[in-house]
Amino acid sequence: MSDLSRFSLNQATTKRWPMRETVAGCVAAGVPGIGLWRDQVDELGVERTAALVRSAGLTVTTLCRGGFFTADGWRDDNLRAIDEAAALGAPVLVLVSGGLPPGSRDVDGARRMVADAIAALVPHAEAAGVQLAIEPLHPMFASDRCVIATLGNALDIADAFPAAAVGVVVDTYHLWWDDQVWTQLARAGAAGRIACFQVADWITPLPEGVLLGRGLPGTGCVELRRFREAVDAAGYRGPIEVEVFHEDVWSRPGEDVLAETIKGYLQHVL
Amino acid sequence: MSDLSRFSLNQATTKRWPMRETVAGCVAAGVPGIGLWRDQVDELGVERTAALVRSAGLTVTTLCRGGFFTADGWRDDNLRAIDEAAALGAPVLVLVSGGLPPGSRDVDGARRMVADAIAALVPHAEAAGVQLAIEPLHPMFASDRCVIATLGNALDIADAFPAAAVGVVVDTYHLWWDDQVWTQLARAGAAGRIACFQVADWITPLPEGVLLGRGLPGTGCVELRRFREAVDAAGYRGPIEVEVFHEDVWSRPGEDVLAETIKGYLQHVL
Repeated sequence: MSDLSRFSLNQATTKRWPMRETVAGCVAAGVPGIGLWRDQVDELGVERTAALVRSAGLTVTTLCRGGFFTADGWRDDNLRAIDEAAALGAPVLVLVSGGLPPGSRDVDGARRMVADAIAALVPHAEAAGVQLAIEPLHPMFASDRCVIATLGNALDIADAFPAAAVGVVVDTYHLWWDDQVWTQLARAGAAGRIACFQVADWITPLPEGVLLGRGLPGTGCVELRRFREAVDAAGYRGPIEVEVFHEDVWSRPGEDVLAETIKGYLQHVL
Repeated sequence: MSDLSRFSLNQATTKRWPMRETVAGCVAAGVPGIGLWRDQVDELGVERTAALVRSAGLTVTTLCRGGFFTADGWRDDNLRAIDEAAALGAPVLVLVSGGLPPGSRDVDGARRMVADAIAALVPHAEAAGVQLAIEPLHPMFASDRCVIATLGNALDIADAFPAAAVGVVVDTYHLWWDDQVWTQLARAGAAGRIACFQVADWITPLPEGVLLGRGLPGTGCVELRRFREAVDAAGYRGPIEVEVFHEDVWSRPGEDVLAETIKGYLQHVL
């Protein structure tokens, strides 16, 4: 099976690949979609990136990322991120909610800040035609990156808003350990809230700081196909992004990483 | 407030403190309880350790640990651990369930292995008068140490057995990030299943391998007093162990660590 129709390269996987080479590499490999990162879009800027991607015929599947709602300046930064998503043609803005405010132990309060911030952003997102997508991150990031640590919690927050305005990101790396995830995937699908499906594998030992410890599909212990089948069964028909953060992956040529990513996707996800 | 009546030193916190010094140090500090580790008990052996602790007037609050049910040899090792707990006067044997079997991606299957192993051990534990206590570990350990990652999942497994035979461990380090933990604590208390309450704080950045990243009480972001009040409200009246794994803590003199542990306990837990 070599169907790449739903495949999207999240460009965090090839973090050091320049934008023009990334786009050309995707086209050469028959990849139809790309998930963009704002720091990588900065290389050429929003308008030139949008034109480049459009002329290549690539579909932008997401823009990563907004969020960090517990830090100063979240409002302006997220309004800008929504505008950037719209300009890039990204239907979805991925939100990493942010950790505890400095010195705080109030995780409930931080979660309320996230809900309040999303409420404040929804009108602008709706006007821009961009769906906000709450991404639950693995609980090991709960204090410093994302107080939303389960799909259930993300859905509880999303419930207050129309599904077209606020969805959730399903990322296998962050959710695989949760015995409740299958129930919550069905709930997410029934509510029409699966905005994006991202794939990475879980490998150990985790590196210091734990951010750059993800594996390419098939290199770890996650039941990736079971996840894909579960999001499909929940009614999701959208793109499947592979998003891997790992120093060893980043240090390799982009073409090689893309080829291995596609191979892992075909063998372990489809 | 300087009430140490419920305080217990889990000796993992002072891993390199020899057993005789640890016991003498606890007595000198007015500490009534100690949580023992099997590898540290090996220093003097079970019988001499039991006699030492008893003659010092210390209460053994737990023995750590049994479990690792997904590895070969789990049965004999856990039968031995139960016997050791009984010989040491430990009412509770802490169980760290084990990760995925080598090469496996079947986390549901691994959880069934845990439930089946506990079922096989319950008769021996009941005969020995030792309560088995399932400890959910932080999800960052799910693949290599413990497939039971939430209090809810631990209770689901414990539900099949009498509460006197199978309880759960509530450890703040492992559970603080879970928005469902307060509901599950109430459930655990109502079922009489809180076998042990352990305290450690969450600090970042996590070290490579993430095992030795815990903080002494008060050094991190966990609402420790909220947890203590929640287990109290759930009807728990037992000991409160402080259990910290950290290379910097282990490298310091045991007396100093115990003094700081007590200070953190009085300020942040009581």
